[in-house]
Amino acid sequence: MSSIFGNKIRVSIFGQSHGEKIGCVLDGLPAGEAVDLVALRQFLSRRAPGQAGTTARRETDEPHIVSGLLNGFTCGAPLCVLMDNADARPADYDALKDTPRPGHADYPAHVKYRGFEDIRGGGHFSGRLTAPFCAAGGILMQLLERRGVFIGAHLLSAGGVRDRALDPLFTDRETLLSLRLGFPVLDKAREAQMRALLEETRLEGDSVGGVVECAAIGLPAGLGEPMFGGIENRVAQAVFAIPAVKGLEFGEGFAASVLKGSENNDGYTARDGRPSLLSNHAGGVLGGLSDGAPLLFRAAFKPTPSIRRPQPSVSLSRMEEKTISVQGRHDPCVALRAVPCVEAAVALALADFLL
Amino acid sequence: MSSIFGNKIRVSIFGQSHGEKIGCVLDGLPAGEAVDLVALRQFLSRRAPGQAGTTARRETDEPHIVSGLLNGFTCGAPLCVLMDNADARPADYDALKDTPRPGHADYPAHVKYRGFEDIRGGGHFSGRLTAPFCAAGGILMQLLERRGVFIGAHLLSAGGVRDRALDPLFTDRETLLSLRLGFPVLDKAREAQMRALLEETRLEGDSVGGVVECAAIGLPAGLGEPMFGGIENRVAQAVFAIPAVKGLEFGEGFAASVLKGSENNDGYTARDGRPSLLSNHAGGVLGGLSDGAPLLFRAAFKPTPSIRRPQPSVSLSRMEEKTISVQGRHDPCVALRAVPCVEAAVALALADFLL
Amino acid sequence: MSSIFGNKIRVSIFGQSHGEKIGCVLDGLPAGEAVDLVALRQFLSRRAPGQAGTTARRETDEPHIVSGLLNGFTCGAPLCVLMDNADARPADYDALKDTPRPGHADYPAHVKYRGFEDIRGGGHFSGRLTAPFCAAGGILMQLLERRGVFIGAHLLSAGGVRDRALDPLFTDRETLLSLRLGFPVLDKAREAQMRALLEETRLEGDSVGGVVECAAIGLPAGLGEPMFGGIENRVAQAVFAIPAVKGLEFGEGFAASVLKGSENNDGYTARDGRPSLLSNHAGGVLGGLSDGAPLLFRAAFKPTPSIRRPQPSVSLSRMEEKTISVQGRHDPCVALRAVPCVEAAVALALADFLL
Amino acid sequence: MSSIFGNKIRVSIFGQSHGEKIGCVLDGLPAGEAVDLVALRQFLSRRAPGQAGTTARRETDEPHIVSGLLNGFTCGAPLCVLMDNADARPADYDALKDTPRPGHADYPAHVKYRGFEDIRGGGHFSGRLTAPFCAAGGILMQLLERRGVFIGAHLLSAGGVRDRALDPLFTDRETLLSLRLGFPVLDKAREAQMRALLEETRLEGDSVGGVVECAAIGLPAGLGEPMFGGIENRVAQAVFAIPAVKGLEFGEGFAASVLKGSENNDGYTARDGRPSLLSNHAGGVLGGLSDGAPLLFRAAFKPTPSIRRPQPSVSLSRMEEKTISVQGRHDPCVALRAVPCVEAAVALALADFLL
Repeated sequence: MSSIFGNKIRVSIFGQSHGEKIGCVLDGLPAGEAVDLVALRQFLSRRAPGQAGTTARRETDEPHIVSGLLNGFTCGAPLCVLMDNADARPADYDALKDTPRPGHADYPAHVKYRGFEDIRGGGHFSGRLTAPFCAAGGILMQLLERRGVFIGAHLLSAGGVRDRALDPLFTDRETLLSLRLGFPVLDKAREAQMRALLEETRLEGDSVGGVVECAAIGLPAGLGEPMFGGIENRVAQAVFAIPAVKGLEFGEGFAASVLKGSENNDGYTARDGRPSLLSNHAGGVLGGLSDGAPLLFRAAFKPTPSIRRPQPSVSLSRMEEKTISVQGRHDPCVALRAVPCVEAAVALALADFLL
Repeated sequence: MSSIFGNKIRVSIFGQSHGEKIGCVLDGLPAGEAVDLVALRQFLSRRAPGQAGTTARRETDEPHIVSGLLNGFTCGAPLCVLMDNADARPADYDALKDTPRPGHADYPAHVKYRGFEDIRGGGHFSGRLTAPFCAAGGILMQLLERRGVFIGAHLLSAGGVRDRALDPLFTDRETLLSLRLGFPVLDKAREAQMRALLEETRLEGDSVGGVVECAAIGLPAGLGEPMFGGIENRVAQAVFAIPAVKGLEFGEGFAASVLKGSENNDGYTARDGRPSLLSNHAGGVLGGLSDGAPLLFRAAFKPTPSIRRPQPSVSLSRMEEKTISVQGRHDPCVALRAVPCVEAAVALALADFLL
Repeated sequence: MSSIFGNKIRVSIFGQSHGEKIGCVLDGLPAGEAVDLVALRQFLSRRAPGQAGTTARRETDEPHIVSGLLNGFTCGAPLCVLMDNADARPADYDALKDTPRPGHADYPAHVKYRGFEDIRGGGHFSGRLTAPFCAAGGILMQLLERRGVFIGAHLLSAGGVRDRALDPLFTDRETLLSLRLGFPVLDKAREAQMRALLEETRLEGDSVGGVVECAAIGLPAGLGEPMFGGIENRVAQAVFAIPAVKGLEFGEGFAASVLKGSENNDGYTARDGRPSLLSNHAGGVLGGLSDGAPLLFRAAFKPTPSIRRPQPSVSLSRMEEKTISVQGRHDPCVALRAVPCVEAAVALALADFLL
Repeated sequence: MSSIFGNKIRVSIFGQSHGEKIGCVLDGLPAGEAVDLVALRQFLSRRAPGQAGTTARRETDEPHIVSGLLNGFTCGAPLCVLMDNADARPADYDALKDTPRPGHADYPAHVKYRGFEDIRGGGHFSGRLTAPFCAAGGILMQLLERRGVFIGAHLLSAGGVRDRALDPLFTDRETLLSLRLGFPVLDKAREAQMRALLEETRLEGDSVGGVVECAAIGLPAGLGEPMFGGIENRVAQAVFAIPAVKGLEFGEGFAASVLKGSENNDGYTARDGRPSLLSNHAGGVLGGLSDGAPLLFRAAFKPTPSIRRPQPSVSLSRMEEKTISVQGRHDPCVALRAVPCVEAAVALALADFLL
């Protein structure tokens, strides 16, 4: 199961941060689906480094589709997307091989792979792998949009600076689409404040955490499977694949734990000949099934673990304490570039139910 | 995937709240594992109704193992556990068939199954199904304990009344085991306060949410798989199968989103010839892999959706508004009985990695 | 994967020959499907012991559906079928524990399960488990027939006595249905001859092999998936789950290996506005996909391994040679009762593509 | 499941005959395994076109490993192998788009993919895809050999010319290794006869079928899972993924159907302190589990469907009959180049049990 997700539509992701190529294979795609490469590139550019407030690593992230596509349409064969690792700088990591970086998978990966792991940039555990993750998700989002399902996310908070939350019952596609342009906040007034915090944090050699809020609209009621196959289960399995995610909550989420049933239950009214929800504390999911309201959830991101500030670690070879300062090019807040990753994760989860 | 979980060890759960039998099948269990039925009954009794502060429905939940066990040991064949639904009262639910209960899966299930769903008590979506869920988890916990892994959970909060949190670096097995006796709180002084709140809430015809905190100790570093197969992904997929779970966070979780990297990263020291963590903000998981610290997470439960208080709903047949008041025997706080369910979910998730 | 089959529709089979109960769980069945218990019992009676030429073990094989069914229709929840092992005689097998029976899984199971295996009657490896296998397949066959797909099989040969083969292009439903009544041969004149051979073989304390030919009609062209997900791959995975199957061939099968391309290729003609095959050497499958002709294949069964005749074996405890003579009640030709099992296997394989 | 195989080790295959690249991803490989590229190239060269008696299409089949490998050892990350389609000639197939080739997947693929299929050279259904199939299998064979398991196959018959069969109880590694050099027959005297037949057939514009016999030695007893997870089931699922396979039999296979139990059962003797088989009619598998004897099976291949001889087909656009003659470069007997493919299939099937 490691790097493969899905039942009907299976996504297999491969590559390491500083390996030759990274990519993904989508197996089970229906034939006859247009893949808009311009839109895919735009989607990937939202994740790409080089934006304000992100790492200085340069990668074009150009998606190169080498199978599964014929004259712009899927042909039923597995679709493989390749991307080059152009700006790999393996030398940056040589010194770190003996000293696990706090907050990274270095140490458990060293135990698991018995020293054979690719430590360079975190190898397969790197945030770099969210590029093919987003390529897969971006393609699936195009298929979902053609079926009326739109996914959008924004940076609800970064280091404590908070954006406005989405209206739980909103169904306005324009709201979602507007988030795709520029800095991903609803309240554009917050952009400057967040940017300033990120820049300040970067200069301190530190990092901050954040929260991404994500919604999907256009889902018919009754999607999902009971128990382990619910929308929440599937979204969770996909979202926790994004590095640095440490929490996930649907609708009221943790806040529901201090509500009463009479406050938290979403009542029904009759509208257009069918039941319609009066509120959306459930985040659009009841018993694992979509209830007709927007799917709404938040993912918590820990601060980027790579920081210049000195931290306590150990030398694995000499098994003695050693201070480490992680050099290199790092995002002060991973949550910022993770916004499209969260959208991609939802696309992976929903594709199995909708295609 | 709906009601089947796992790769190497597969758990298949079946039954409806008011059907004839409920049960589970465990496929892939190693042979030669003792199953202690006394311990299993004790574990199931923690979930069973009839305790103070829970529903008055009477079920013995006696697990009846009809295959896979020979002379008390697993024999390599799939193990099937059956339980009777002795106190089923289908008549209680006849009136509800036309009026979906807010906060329940009734309406989306009605859409998905086109009227053929078993509405009685929520059918397959009922909390009743956590009985075979716990039977599967309880058996797996015995196998895990034999390998040095202990799982324990407590009611961190109920309706706002808060228990003490676990020390993130605790490794004391007795602490976990003590939670299995009596009311599941660390600070036994909170029991009376919580019970009072639950009783008061019940009398109001209302319910409250809660949070369950869970830990697993004894995990070696390096367990788990990258990306979709990480411990967080697997635990999430299993925990969200418990009805009423709306949030999940590992280690600092959402709190990490307002921390700095220098605060949130867990440094290492050298202890007993290997790296040891100085703190456990990560909840024991880095990059999906166990890092040697205790696995630590919290699950948020919404308030029991079944409440006596009148709520707005609709008549599905006439498609007009209709007030509903859910009668019957319901827990004022599902999180209380869910404590062993969360432990069971962890056992399901870890079994694939450890057996 | 051991005793679980399928992707969308998952069948999980449990039980041992002389355990308390045997059964199966079907997960993923669509809701609203009628299950005709009378028809299911009739189907199971074709596999049941007690017919002429079969073992004298008495089992009613009464299928008891304890979940997933409401008022005769599937309700979307997993459907569990239980069967009792009424005529289990564990004592028959005590002597065999130390001496593996040639041709049975006794010895490899002993190695795999390290002595914890349930040796009684072959445990989970017993032909007895084809009862829940057929229960699952029989239910799925009802769903497939409702969609126009009919499956039928006959005993093409037993111990060298050969029935007439099916016309590869037949589409006559009556032919298939007639096979369900009485002795499963097309040429009813062969019944007496086969019965005589079986009785003679039984009296000799020996057994004979056989071949089952099976067809499915009504399949639209284009079903199946490429490569590992082809109809042949899926049918093969299901058919080899029936004990004693040692060979499988589609269409010309092994005979195709001595044909020329110009002889073996199936040409097309235009009929009713679409391409129609002029012959069916391919057995209805090209590239793993159905081509519109009947699915047609043969499965080879080895002779029943349980024979009274003395055979060389070893004492596992003393590791010395020991002659064994298998007493008890055994079929002289497993292929006879396996006829409905092969049909059931096809239903399992096709259900994933058709439901 | 389509083009993905395996549980613990998952192989995902992508590409089309005349697409840009073909390849595979192996997910779940243990870390620290050397991959010998020279040996891999040698293995692939046995499948490559351009040998005597094969198609004239030129492909280097150079495997390019772009992830998962570090300094020659697997690093625990998914391993991706890419291959270029250098000698693709899409134009050859333009005329065929409207006229399905008999014996190919063209017509069912056309129905399934609704005209969006990649018809060029059979697209994803092409024998060309056995190149990445063999790349995956060839890598896994190296891991298996390091664990003492050796796989070898030979061309048991081609168009009726028959090689000597393997001794069912042979355990001589040299026999298997010798098959890897030159023409894959045991009786080298048959090479000239087979080559002559193939050349003659080619000149006639026709093709012939064949049978590949394959063995695996070094398997410990007790490998495999019961029922659907048996060695036979898994080998079958993998072998039927090779284009043109129409039959499969283990040990005596179809011949067992005319044997008596007393002839077909394999007795045991005591040797070196454990039970040892006196014969191998079972082909090394009992109840799905390895019994300690060599795994031995035969796969039947139909004649290459691409033949120059005129065949009846239809014009899909005008739905009228049309004669087709398949031009291009084709093998007169696919079974010849399929020999290493069958070995690769076994490696895929066994990897899940042995790694």
